[in-house]
Amino acid sequence: MSIVAVGSLAFDSITSTEGSRERILGGSLTHFSNAAAFLSKPQLVGVVGNDFSETEWEFLRGKTSSLDGVETMENEKSFFWKGYYTKDVNNAITQATELNAFAKFKPVVPESYKQDDYTLFLANIDPVVQLDVVHQCSQAKFKVLDTMNYWISNAPEKLHEVFETVDCIIINETEAYSLSDEINLIAAAEKLFFPNFKMIILKKGSNGVMVFGKKYMISLPSFPIDHVIDPTGAGDSFAGAFFSYIDKYQVDVNDREQTKKAAIYATIVASFAVEGFGVEGIDRINEDDINRRLKLYSEISGFQIP
Amino acid sequence: MSIVAVGSLAFDSITSTEGSRERILGGSLTHFSNAAAFLSKPQLVGVVGNDFSETEWEFLRGKTSSLDGVETMENEKSFFWKGYYTKDVNNAITQATELNAFAKFKPVVPESYKQDDYTLFLANIDPVVQLDVVHQCSQAKFKVLDTMNYWISNAPEKLHEVFETVDCIIINETEAYSLSDEINLIAAAEKLFFPNFKMIILKKGSNGVMVFGKKYMISLPSFPIDHVIDPTGAGDSFAGAFFSYIDKYQVDVNDREQTKKAAIYATIVASFAVEGFGVEGIDRINEDDINRRLKLYSEISGFQIP
Repeated sequence: MSIVAVGSLAFDSITSTEGSRERILGGSLTHFSNAAAFLSKPQLVGVVGNDFSETEWEFLRGKTSSLDGVETMENEKSFFWKGYYTKDVNNAITQATELNAFAKFKPVVPESYKQDDYTLFLANIDPVVQLDVVHQCSQAKFKVLDTMNYWISNAPEKLHEVFETVDCIIINETEAYSLSDEINLIAAAEKLFFPNFKMIILKKGSNGVMVFGKKYMISLPSFPIDHVIDPTGAGDSFAGAFFSYIDKYQVDVNDREQTKKAAIYATIVASFAVEGFGVEGIDRINEDDINRRLKLYSEISGFQIP
Repeated sequence: MSIVAVGSLAFDSITSTEGSRERILGGSLTHFSNAAAFLSKPQLVGVVGNDFSETEWEFLRGKTSSLDGVETMENEKSFFWKGYYTKDVNNAITQATELNAFAKFKPVVPESYKQDDYTLFLANIDPVVQLDVVHQCSQAKFKVLDTMNYWISNAPEKLHEVFETVDCIIINETEAYSLSDEINLIAAAEKLFFPNFKMIILKKGSNGVMVFGKKYMISLPSFPIDHVIDPTGAGDSFAGAFFSYIDKYQVDVNDREQTKKAAIYATIVASFAVEGFGVEGIDRINEDDINRRLKLYSEISGFQIP
């Protein structure tokens, strides 16, 4: 009953139509933990450089249950990403990527992390590294993999190899199309559903999410947001909220209704992510804010046919 | 308690990845009626040429309650459209458009159509013509307008003028963006909501539909279809099913829950439209098929938060 998450911790410089932020805390693990923390604070495995200050550590301590697996490289800087969004917030334009310490990332999952029934979340990193982590965590109850177009194009065979070792992949629409060579999401999910998979999650940004189980399909719209400030990390926030719900309530992912509840919860938490720069949107909310928005979501999109 | 629909009757030659059909019955009124007929057979106002055969008339008689307003031009051919879809079914590529009789279309709404509380549906035609029809039908209870990018680009002022006379517009995502110069759908709907409007319907194709009332918002995903054969007419089918539900059950469009039921019903009827060429997908189904799929939709996308 805990989550181990392996991925990046970073500084992001972000410009959107709503303004700019320089070197704010980012990275997949940051957004994942920020959203997961309401229900299940994850244990992190990552790497940072000597530029990580007490402010960043303090933030992460608040959102996680252990940072023992986070290495500090004294002669390196942390992963840095710089990018901007035009009016079309669905596409980030990268201006700079400095891998720094992340280029030398050799994750070691502490033995203390490997509790009974833990969920392993492999954020988007080199599939070679993901495979190494899967081997370290072979006894994890549920193994989830995120990836991105870079690896789909540049390391398809390695990616295929990791796919054979996990229970679930979480990818976005574009990635599903590239991976499957299909242009229909249901056809894509069917083609991508490895025999060992229990679930595929297809994120569609402002168009919602689809979840495919072995014997079911779930499709939900997003919660409508009229003022998107910064979409960075929305996908990782969805993942954090979704798997924290799965972990906390011991969801049987073969059960559609239980899994749908996790997807509804994650849809709402992720909707806050885009309403502020970096971690702000989710960091400033509490359980009441989530519950209020869940109720609104039910009014806007909920229905039941007897 | 009836619908008057004004628009096109046409022959379509369509090619998709699933095959080709030559000169099959199409046009906005055909698809609208095909979907509306389960609940409320509309009265049509349109024009056809001398190439309209008994087969087409017979089909239309089955789906409508009156064709008195359909003129036959003996020296003209019917509207003809030829186009194809690539693997990306969201975009039709037009190869030929022959307006023929439709170019001279001067709709006259028969007096017999103007019953109490009728709904007027103005399918996509020249806004000058739409305005003329609105004047003929000033006593209609509910006036709905559909349009397309051609008129948005070429007759924005005239379109604006018609907007001021109707209760509802039904447009797709791209049209909403062009009309509003916004890239967020909620912002677009707010900007486009004329003081006289009761409702805006934004169709998002395979990403579902949003309905905006004066005081509410509805967002629904589409019913997932893994094998799209021909998307032609899906939007008009949605409109037909939606307004037939509104008409039949006398839906108060200021009431979110009632309106949501209409949108759910229309989502399901429209999902059948894309599973066959032309009218086939909907023509071959019955009420049981609709009810079965409604139940499935509830399993896939339905939820309620107490």
